Amino acid sequence: MESKVIDKMISIVGKDYVIDDIEQKMSYFYDEIEHTMRPKANEDSIVVKPKDTDEISMIMKYANKNNLTVVIRGGGTGLSGACTPIRESIILSTERFNKIIEIDEDNMVAVLEAGVTLFQLLEELGKYEGTGFPVHPGDEGAQIGGMAVTNAGGARAVKHGVMRKHIQGMEVVLPNGEVLELGGKLLKNNAGYNLMQLIIGSEGTLAVVTKVVLKIYPKDKYSATIVAPFKNFNDASNAVLQILKSGVTPLAVEYQDKHLFVETAKMLGTEWQANEGNADLMIIISEKTEDLLYETCRQINDICIKNNSYETLFAGKKSEQDELLLIRSQHYEYIKDIIGHSFDTAVPVADIPAYLKDLKDLANEYNTFTNITAHIADGNIHSDIVLVDGEMPNYAEELKERIFKTCFKYNGTITGEHGIGKLRKKDLKLQKSETEINLMKGIKKLFDPNNILNPGTIFD
Amino acid sequence: MESKVIDKMISIVGKDYVIDDIEQKMSYFYDEIEHTMRPKANEDSIVVKPKDTDEISMIMKYANKNNLTVVIRGGGTGLSGACTPIRESIILSTERFNKIIEIDEDNMVAVLEAGVTLFQLLEELGKYEGTGFPVHPGDEGAQIGGMAVTNAGGARAVKHGVMRKHIQGMEVVLPNGEVLELGGKLLKNNAGYNLMQLIIGSEGTLAVVTKVVLKIYPKDKYSATIVAPFKNFNDASNAVLQILKSGVTPLAVEYQDKHLFVETAKMLGTEWQANEGNADLMIIISEKTEDLLYETCRQINDICIKNNSYETLFAGKKSEQDELLLIRSQHYEYIKDIIGHSFDTAVPVADIPAYLKDLKDLANEYNTFTNITAHIADGNIHSDIVLVDGEMPNYAEELKERIFKTCFKYNGTITGEHGIGKLRKKDLKLQKSETEINLMKGIKKLFDPNNILNPGTIFD
Repeated sequence: MESKVIDKMISIVGKDYVIDDIEQKMSYFYDEIEHTMRPKANEDSIVVKPKDTDEISMIMKYANKNNLTVVIRGGGTGLSGACTPIRESIILSTERFNKIIEIDEDNMVAVLEAGVTLFQLLEELGKYEGTGFPVHPGDEGAQIGGMAVTNAGGARAVKHGVMRKHIQGMEVVLPNGEVLELGGKLLKNNAGYNLMQLIIGSEGTLAVVTKVVLKIYPKDKYSATIVAPFKNFNDASNAVLQILKSGVTPLAVEYQDKHLFVETAKMLGTEWQANEGNADLMIIISEKTEDLLYETCRQINDICIKNNSYETLFAGKKSEQDELLLIRSQHYEYIKDIIGHSFDTAVPVADIPAYLKDLKDLANEYNTFTNITAHIADGNIHSDIVLVDGEMPNYAEELKERIFKTCFKYNGTITGEHGIGKLRKKDLKLQKSETEINLMKGIKKLFDPNNILNPGTIFD
Repeated sequence: MESKVIDKMISIVGKDYVIDDIEQKMSYFYDEIEHTMRPKANEDSIVVKPKDTDEISMIMKYANKNNLTVVIRGGGTGLSGACTPIRESIILSTERFNKIIEIDEDNMVAVLEAGVTLFQLLEELGKYEGTGFPVHPGDEGAQIGGMAVTNAGGARAVKHGVMRKHIQGMEVVLPNGEVLELGGKLLKNNAGYNLMQLIIGSEGTLAVVTKVVLKIYPKDKYSATIVAPFKNFNDASNAVLQILKSGVTPLAVEYQDKHLFVETAKMLGTEWQANEGNADLMIIISEKTEDLLYETCRQINDICIKNNSYETLFAGKKSEQDELLLIRSQHYEYIKDIIGHSFDTAVPVADIPAYLKDLKDLANEYNTFTNITAHIADGNIHSDIVLVDGEMPNYAEELKERIFKTCFKYNGTITGEHGIGKLRKKDLKLQKSETEINLMKGIKKLFDPNNILNPGTIFD
């Protein structure tokens, strides 16, 4: 990076908060995407750590005037490479921008700087009796700003939906440095086009989100986890559809290929208790009262049994539930060394059985296999292309395209929750018409005429 | 309208579906806005009633090529004049576009043509045991397309939120006639900028919505209504905040000035049962089981009593509940002849007591009064400026602006649910920065470069 840019950045945020040392800045280049998939960072980029909206505004103004690329970096927990600077960039890290401005219990909202982590938020809400925030993308190092611009999802979307449903207001800095207040503590607000909804999911390409007004909720105090083992996937899937129709709503319904449960448990020095069957559902239930919890569990259990499940396992104690959740979340450690490419497709939930069969058939056709974990009640499937002798197989691109085409057969999407980032921009063209992509590009140009904000994300 | 345009329209939709007779087309000019507030329709406009997406696409293509104005008309139940053609226009009525394409119980979605009315949808869902759709803007003549583009709200938003939360997919026709599919039956979908969210709330200015994929839900089977009379509004308001924090969520919490309940009941030949107090809440509760219903009622009742309510009235029978709801909904008949201007402001729910006091004080200052009805748990207030001797008072404009400024003091919005339409476009500039409005205008230009679609709505 040119020294005059570095000097300017130092003049705005102070010497301690501009990083040009390669060792130090290295950890700001990538997100949690697999090494085999990640875009290459431009190492001439520098890291700048503003402390407030004013500093961000000054940085953007200068960058815009001088056509400098700015890439925003939140918690770095993304899975699509959006925060990797592929051009020489100012990496704008929001880590110092982490004040919990207000927990407003009367309006049941939290006002947060973008760099507040999910962990920080949940810890703070713990001090207010009975309040919580439901969206949980898995990694509590995720920052609220990042969760907003990626419209984060996660397992709990079954009951609570994705981030979009919980954001009431935002402060953003436009690429030209102007500050906009969008929405607020309002539950109803229909004044003109909703620019905030457009920025949610825009992956840091339209504006820098600096503050978020987030709805908080009375917390469900009681939870339990049911493991329901089914003979086959169709039965498991039918149970899911009937649960969703029944009127009882679980917090999460997770599916994983049996071997992932079994082997991950082994890796963790424990044992997967569901011996029977080939298709296990992990159903997490949370309710406000104990009575309600048991009633919901009873109903879900009945539905599973009616759909030919083997005897279900019930975990009511926190320690038991935590162990199950650990097995669910740590499966990645078990498979990560063999993953070449991982998918985040989503299809209508009723099409899951057919889609899963297609995925397995496709893998067979290439003499390989795929590991499937799914937020099954959301229709959101994570599958993969596995490495062959540690190398990306030569059929990878072809198989990827066939998987997407299979997904489109069910009117699915190439990304349910991880976003396009730099990883899927070519694939986006398979899903969207030129007209729609051109409208998106027009919007990008409107917000960011000089294309300085995270270019090469979503589209080139 | 030029005869060659009429001929072209006839060639597209057929002779029976183009209306140029003034008597007949008159009923297509206005929505349900008060006569004192409504914009003047251009009577040279014609009504065209296409039957499907193809015909709509052909109409738009022709209009775009020839710079003809098109105004979409749904159920005509709006309250902001958006559907009134202020220029010579083709009024595109969606009334024939009213097929329920699919009730998909597996995915729990309804796929609907835009002209399907809420009445039609609810009637159809009645045939599927236990399914329902929760958003209810009051008038069941509202069409789904209109409800989508206005992001309709209504009383039940307390429990279920507004339309935006329930729309999963759309088919739209762009002003140039191109057809776009947005979203689908997907619960998670993060593929690029969410144009659908932008179209929701755009009031027919960006695209013609032709189909909507709507989430449907297991229906709450049990309901009850509590009327809680409070000595004063502050107590009532505190009760509302505590209910919202408690974790039990009523379907609706409605407030009306006491005299509106009393006089409307009288007008309907009955009597308002809550004699004591000056501030009555009507709290509607719906739950999936009878046990849960009574438990929720008990908790809400306790909170009301704790906040000094007089003895609450409980209506459990459908007929009793219907009577209460009728009194709530018919108040408008009681006051409609004296209303000069009606408001739809919203503020953070905790600011309602202060804001209401300000509204009453302002009215006093002008030696007048205001009728207040509120979706109080949403922070959404409907107040009014009353006529003086049947005429709009000369202070109306001044008072209106002062009411908006008061609303902004609480970071409120000029419209919680009714939208900007043609009524509030001047006022929008009071609320939004020039930068934000310019971004909106840029988006309009991107979708509709020739400004043919409902011009003069939201902004000029």
